[in-house]
Amino acid sequence: MATIVSEGKAIVDKNVGDLWTFRKTITDSDVSLFAGITGDMNPLHIDGVYASNTEFKGRLAHGVIGVGILVGIMARELPGGVLLGQSVKFLRPVFIGDTLTAFVEVSGKDEEKDLIFFRIWCENQDGVKVMAGEAQGLVRKRK
Amino acid sequence: MATIVSEGKAIVDKNVGDLWTFRKTITDSDVSLFAGITGDMNPLHIDGVYASNTEFKGRLAHGVIGVGILVGIMARELPGGVLLGQSVKFLRPVFIGDTLTAFVEVSGKDEEKDLIFFRIWCENQDGVKVMAGEAQGLVRKRK
Repeated sequence: MATIVSEGKAIVDKNVGDLWTFRKTITDSDVSLFAGITGDMNPLHIDGVYASNTEFKGRLAHGVIGVGILVGIMARELPGGVLLGQSVKFLRPVFIGDTLTAFVEVSGKDEEKDLIFFRIWCENQDGVKVMAGEAQGLVRKRK
Repeated sequence: MATIVSEGKAIVDKNVGDLWTFRKTITDSDVSLFAGITGDMNPLHIDGVYASNTEFKGRLAHGVIGVGILVGIMARELPGGVLLGQSVKFLRPVFIGDTLTAFVEVSGKDEEKDLIFFRIWCENQDGVKVMAGEAQGLVRKRK
């Protein structure tokens, strides 16, 4: 059986400047499960008493959840693509219950080498940029 | 109630060259839950038929899970610390069932500004480096 890659999902169909988005509320369940998956038990994420006594006044989501959401957008637009690298700065806290809009913009591509480059960032429900960076992917050839 | 930060958990107790590790098997459950948390439904992660027809011959874990594990080590050594940024290159695939050892090494610190810098990487059960990069954290002052 041949590998199926939908038409319109290959690198040749993507252009510099293409902007893709996805919006998701970061729930308490997301944070609890992510803590279990990764072992990241930072009290800022899992200890409400601790977190409420910090300047944040409440529990934060793991910032890396946002990175996962950003990578998920690339996967949706280029299924079968492989993430080669990413770099993200965490600019502002993400609170449990925040609704993030994740943005992926194509910043470059090298069709010869099947490489594609992205600017990536997330904004919260108030339009505040909470994280920003870049990523590089290897896109599988259309079969 | 005062915020509790355990003795020995402040930036002044950490030194350049300190190396911390954590080992974890990446399970099918981890990958399924991570897909749901992030929306990353790349067929390489969730479609066994698709994945088995690629050069990988099977489903891969999301590389960002490894990033979360690395950040979790920092949280364990410096609870209450805030991740300011990270940059990771994904060098080799991580398969479901692989056992990753995550390494965090203190590469620098600025006690004046409460900043700490890390080299980070993960190896699989064969000692192959599957991802590598760096991270920066802001460590809360001991209270």
